[in-house]
Amino acid sequence: MIHVVDLIRKKRDGGVLADAEIAYLVAGAATNSIPEYQLAAWLMAVVWRGLSPEELHSLTSHMRDSGRVLRFPSLPGVKVDKHSTGGVGDKTSFLVAPIAAAAGLCVPMISGRALGHTGGTLDKLESIPGYRTDLQEEEMLAVLNACGLTIVGQTEWLVPADRTLYSLRDRSGTVESPFLICASIMSKKLAAGLDALVLDVKTGSGAFLKQEAEAIHLAELMVATGNRAGTRTAALITNMSQPLGRMAGNAAEIVESVEVLRNHRHPLTEDLRRLSLELAGWMLYLGGKARSPEEGIQLAEELLLGGLPLKKFRCMIAAQGGDLGWFESPQWLHQPAHRQPIISSSAGFLASVDCHQVGWAVQRSGAGRTAPGEAVSAHAGVETHKKVGDPVAAGDTIFTVYVEDETRLPSVVATLNQCFTVSAAPPAPEPLVYRVVS
Amino acid sequence: MIHVVDLIRKKRDGGVLADAEIAYLVAGAATNSIPEYQLAAWLMAVVWRGLSPEELHSLTSHMRDSGRVLRFPSLPGVKVDKHSTGGVGDKTSFLVAPIAAAAGLCVPMISGRALGHTGGTLDKLESIPGYRTDLQEEEMLAVLNACGLTIVGQTEWLVPADRTLYSLRDRSGTVESPFLICASIMSKKLAAGLDALVLDVKTGSGAFLKQEAEAIHLAELMVATGNRAGTRTAALITNMSQPLGRMAGNAAEIVESVEVLRNHRHPLTEDLRRLSLELAGWMLYLGGKARSPEEGIQLAEELLLGGLPLKKFRCMIAAQGGDLGWFESPQWLHQPAHRQPIISSSAGFLASVDCHQVGWAVQRSGAGRTAPGEAVSAHAGVETHKKVGDPVAAGDTIFTVYVEDETRLPSVVATLNQCFTVSAAPPAPEPLVYRVVS
Repeated sequence: MIHVVDLIRKKRDGGVLADAEIAYLVAGAATNSIPEYQLAAWLMAVVWRGLSPEELHSLTSHMRDSGRVLRFPSLPGVKVDKHSTGGVGDKTSFLVAPIAAAAGLCVPMISGRALGHTGGTLDKLESIPGYRTDLQEEEMLAVLNACGLTIVGQTEWLVPADRTLYSLRDRSGTVESPFLICASIMSKKLAAGLDALVLDVKTGSGAFLKQEAEAIHLAELMVATGNRAGTRTAALITNMSQPLGRMAGNAAEIVESVEVLRNHRHPLTEDLRRLSLELAGWMLYLGGKARSPEEGIQLAEELLLGGLPLKKFRCMIAAQGGDLGWFESPQWLHQPAHRQPIISSSAGFLASVDCHQVGWAVQRSGAGRTAPGEAVSAHAGVETHKKVGDPVAAGDTIFTVYVEDETRLPSVVATLNQCFTVSAAPPAPEPLVYRVVS
Repeated sequence: MIHVVDLIRKKRDGGVLADAEIAYLVAGAATNSIPEYQLAAWLMAVVWRGLSPEELHSLTSHMRDSGRVLRFPSLPGVKVDKHSTGGVGDKTSFLVAPIAAAAGLCVPMISGRALGHTGGTLDKLESIPGYRTDLQEEEMLAVLNACGLTIVGQTEWLVPADRTLYSLRDRSGTVESPFLICASIMSKKLAAGLDALVLDVKTGSGAFLKQEAEAIHLAELMVATGNRAGTRTAALITNMSQPLGRMAGNAAEIVESVEVLRNHRHPLTEDLRRLSLELAGWMLYLGGKARSPEEGIQLAEELLLGGLPLKKFRCMIAAQGGDLGWFESPQWLHQPAHRQPIISSSAGFLASVDCHQVGWAVQRSGAGRTAPGEAVSAHAGVETHKKVGDPVAAGDTIFTVYVEDETRLPSVVATLNQCFTVSAAPPAPEPLVYRVVS
């Protein structure tokens, strides 16, 4: 007979819970048979004491198995995915999934919505008229068979234990635990039945984990948990100290992605292109399409230059009900009603960006939401005109704000005016990828 | 605007909550307007991070003020009480309250029931036919005016915040925090409007706090909290490594107490008598009846020998509806249906007693309860025939078990047979009072 109080006390006192004990807690969370006050106390004890590798494996596995686990045995390709811990202007999914599909891999990507200061892949895709993110399992299978990739939302049969725990963590001050973050992310990713997974763990002012050491710790936990569960997993620790690429918003990010897929290169999108190729290269390597990550990156670039990823992306959009009429002139998709430039009054070099605040500016422009279920604006967002290290003249535009609702402008403008610093000397350059954990 | 999640996160991260923030949490607990899962997460964060002296003062004060606070402005005497953290055979309340009343102090003692392996003052008193523990405030005042002491149960208007938090701690694995224990005890004691308070913080195998260092820490917190709230407070760290006195049970403890009040001395009750005089001596000192604790202890003994405390105890029993017919032959009160001796098979010296297990044996004999609200047996219990250090011959009786329900005997006997050790050499003697925290 298992008593939940005993499990809480055990973790509180620094003990290690047995697999059956963690299974009991997860089942209680999934079926709501354990009261929330007991789960909350246990979650806080986990924030305090952490989890052993065994416990983390048990927690992640039982969470994964609390709902349906996708298998897709009829799919021909190796199943590969990429997951990001969330950033500003992060649209690599729209590049890496088509590149991996172009290499013959299958990418069943289950994505999320805008959260806090970070954007949401589903919100961006839904700026394409008609695009459906609420696919059933058999519909996913059809899109995968036709195109090699699908990007959909989380359905209710996936990891019900995480729905309870995630919501409770938010309300009980127990979000910030690398162990709980790992179990939440990895249980959902593993429920997609992946053969391989590449994690983009972001660090810097625009990331949830501001410190590189925190990002590395989380990456190590996720890589170990994924590999132990039989999914070949690697993580890239990447720089999120300024928005990625040019655009942050919804439709604007789709437009920018299509430009990259069309090989229309621009200096301000080079960081996006390079990071996407690194992530895609690792996907190709872990998916067995290259003998090394370096070879994978080279293959990814060859595929991108060959144009097949663009076709794959079109294929998915059409298969999921999206309009393709805008594809020949993508700018048509992004038609903001109002825009306002953010000007630098001083000259020198762009020294730093408070990327977290840029993210909140994007959210307040209308591209994000303040509560679950709120509608988002397709056309709102923030464009970046200067990257950290670029020379700046007095009067240069640093950002452009786009809104549909003009009353949102003053607050966003006020935020962005405080979001950057200009210095006399250029800042020391920082890498885009700090390291790989594999 | 205060958000509970922010308060949880602040404590989780080792911060110090402001008085208004703690007031908000306590009000939410008292009125059940904060969800239990948030209170539970905060409680676990407090177990983790502890409380600063300021926070502990705020928590205790706001808990005290969450209900009615007794004032009794019409009482002539200084209001003094004694509180014990709980033990086995601990009946000092029945001695110290009458002694303090005999010295002219007022003792408005609000007591509890048997809990786990420890006995309950109210359960013991209710073995006296007719004795009422559920007095209203005006009835308490009448008994205090007539006798100088009253021993009653906690009523619902007293510290409602503690009722919520105490119950939640039990269910969320957050009982064992010296800060939360201190706030729970002291809020209730301070709600009785005391001028002075003596704490009996027990340590050893029969206490909740097994380690002396833990007992000292709790004592220091409670003494600081009491003094800061304006109640002169001191704590004695006392030895609970064997049952106190001869009897552990309900009626049997009343009988033993009356024998001590009648100055019928017995070697096995000397520890009870001595501890009671020390505690009463501190009550007299803090209550202004003696210039030093030593003088207080001497005065307590003189009062006891003079017989007035016995009259005060009778006065209270009669005033609270209790029968006095048994007073001339107290043994009448304790009439167990069945008894069985626990025999030592070896000879030497009683080396140690597992007092925690003796307490559970008392509970299982029928004197305690396994769930709130259960009836207890007046006559069940365990008598001690040997104290640690006493010589033991093979065949000597160590304990006698008393039960009303014969089916309870085997389990109690089995427990008690494992509860003592006999050694060839006498153990090193241990003090009854380890130290005073004041």
